[in-house]
Amino acid sequence: MREATLRDVAELAGVSPRTVSNVVNGYAKVTELTREKVERAIAQLGYRPNVLARHLATGRSGQIVVMVPYLDTPYFAELLQAIIPVARREGYNVLIDQSDGDREHEGQLIGQASHHALFDGMIYSPLGLSQEDLSGRDPALPLVVLGERTSEANFDHVGIDDVAASTEAVQHLIGLGRCRIAAIGDQPYPTGEAAQRRTKGFRAAHAAAGLAVDESLVIGTPRFNRVDGAQAMERLLALENPPDAVFCYSDLVALGAVHTLVRRGFRVPEDVAVIGYDDIEDGRYGLPTISTIAPDKQEIARLAVERLVMRIKSKEPVAGVDLRAGHRLIARQSTLAQ
Amino acid sequence: MREATLRDVAELAGVSPRTVSNVVNGYAKVTELTREKVERAIAQLGYRPNVLARHLATGRSGQIVVMVPYLDTPYFAELLQAIIPVARREGYNVLIDQSDGDREHEGQLIGQASHHALFDGMIYSPLGLSQEDLSGRDPALPLVVLGERTSEANFDHVGIDDVAASTEAVQHLIGLGRCRIAAIGDQPYPTGEAAQRRTKGFRAAHAAAGLAVDESLVIGTPRFNRVDGAQAMERLLALENPPDAVFCYSDLVALGAVHTLVRRGFRVPEDVAVIGYDDIEDGRYGLPTISTIAPDKQEIARLAVERLVMRIKSKEPVAGVDLRAGHRLIARQSTLAQ
Repeated sequence: MREATLRDVAELAGVSPRTVSNVVNGYAKVTELTREKVERAIAQLGYRPNVLARHLATGRSGQIVVMVPYLDTPYFAELLQAIIPVARREGYNVLIDQSDGDREHEGQLIGQASHHALFDGMIYSPLGLSQEDLSGRDPALPLVVLGERTSEANFDHVGIDDVAASTEAVQHLIGLGRCRIAAIGDQPYPTGEAAQRRTKGFRAAHAAAGLAVDESLVIGTPRFNRVDGAQAMERLLALENPPDAVFCYSDLVALGAVHTLVRRGFRVPEDVAVIGYDDIEDGRYGLPTISTIAPDKQEIARLAVERLVMRIKSKEPVAGVDLRAGHRLIARQSTLAQ
Repeated sequence: MREATLRDVAELAGVSPRTVSNVVNGYAKVTELTREKVERAIAQLGYRPNVLARHLATGRSGQIVVMVPYLDTPYFAELLQAIIPVARREGYNVLIDQSDGDREHEGQLIGQASHHALFDGMIYSPLGLSQEDLSGRDPALPLVVLGERTSEANFDHVGIDDVAASTEAVQHLIGLGRCRIAAIGDQPYPTGEAAQRRTKGFRAAHAAAGLAVDESLVIGTPRFNRVDGAQAMERLLALENPPDAVFCYSDLVALGAVHTLVRRGFRVPEDVAVIGYDDIEDGRYGLPTISTIAPDKQEIARLAVERLVMRIKSKEPVAGVDLRAGHRLIARQSTLAQ
């Protein structure tokens, strides 16, 4: 006996093939009565929709993956909440992968996904892999990388202008009359590209103001968490001549730095002004509230999803582009006293 | 010309097929020199590993999905951090789906996944679908549901004993001499099964102590968030005879309730004692710290993954079981003054 088809089910149930498809895929826009008729016909004919085989033919699964280093980092949590509804509106479901910044894991998932019809595309926030690593990947998987591009590639980048944003942040501190400005978060190794762009902006603002950078005030951190900021601030306060302002490479780092300052009896911003990066909710409700660089997360989400969908639908290879979302500086209590 | 095989690549590169597979899958345990040799051979032969076809044969993708209502709810964020490493140790990658508690979305992903080799299995925290909805699903997808079972099913449940835990929470309040105890979080509709078990425990503790439940103290909430707790507490304080203790169905609800109490000038726990549920990090660092029921999240993760892997590997249909993880009551400042 030949295998029952969707058309057979439709005929037996007395409905259109589209309605059968709606029932099979669990779409809600089917009346209870129709659903029952279709389900009875499916059971009677032993029909099994072969979705995988269909995907093998079309190469589409309707799923995209967003790979981020840490799900519980507020910046990524907020960015995911922006990406999910945009992708759903475009007809794609979003699955999320946590890489832990592990180089092997990142390479493995990209490798598997590339040779695979598991996902139609990937939005990827790199931490373990450098741009050089990525440039050698198989181009079969439509890929959009979060962050700025530093080299030619067969995938896209979406990010804000980190150097410009960091320059603005440090110029804000200089504009307040501060002249011993520290930076917390440098990562001078191949995968620390995002951190290095912030250090570049830090230096550019100094140069533009004719200020020399005191290299003892540039502190590296393994991650961008509260603990990194708290520990780096301890080191800065132990200096003979501590800073009067700090540019932190994330709001979590800034929250950690402020924690140390307050605990040690320093006033923020009177003794030390602090500015962060990311505009996460925790910074908006901190005591003091945290001045920050706010990336336009909605625009990042929209650009990343639109570009990925275009790549998924394109039949030709597409050259990589570097798309810039907007950002703005938000001055709060940690740099401007009430 | 016949398609190149993995064995052809191995022969040309002068390495074992296993090494080729390591390179193809991006495993890091390959020297740079070997990787280069293999990559050159792959390019020369135009070899393309057909992972999808292999999966079509074995029906395995190596990916499992965890579907949760909200990624940014701390309880789920913490549970995911427990599930991911356990699954990786078992050889499965974890992809995460946010359902927003949307009935259509939940049904659709389960429906697609069932007819699909996209994922090998699913761990699912239901919110939109009731257990009755789930019982009619296609049994093709190995499924473990988080929460307690209320009916026979062809999938497993993993959860703590909510009724017992809730009874203990309320007995703790009764043991402190409180007798007007409120409950915040009831959800008396089909998808509110988890909430209803907590209400059941609330009533059981009253019955065991010979106390009557004042029905005006049982407050329903649409979700288990801070705002739900804050608003419900407002309603309770507006009563002619407000409660002297509150059992909250999540720590977020408890944090919201405490916020309202403090803002209105009530002392916690002197005027109103508050206990939550979930043992999230925010509650451990609250002012006051929040007493709570702590589910053993590590055990939930271990039981859920082990059971799912067993189902994935089993060739026979497996009857559904109800597995219980442990829990304990942790008394903190919100019920015991310092």
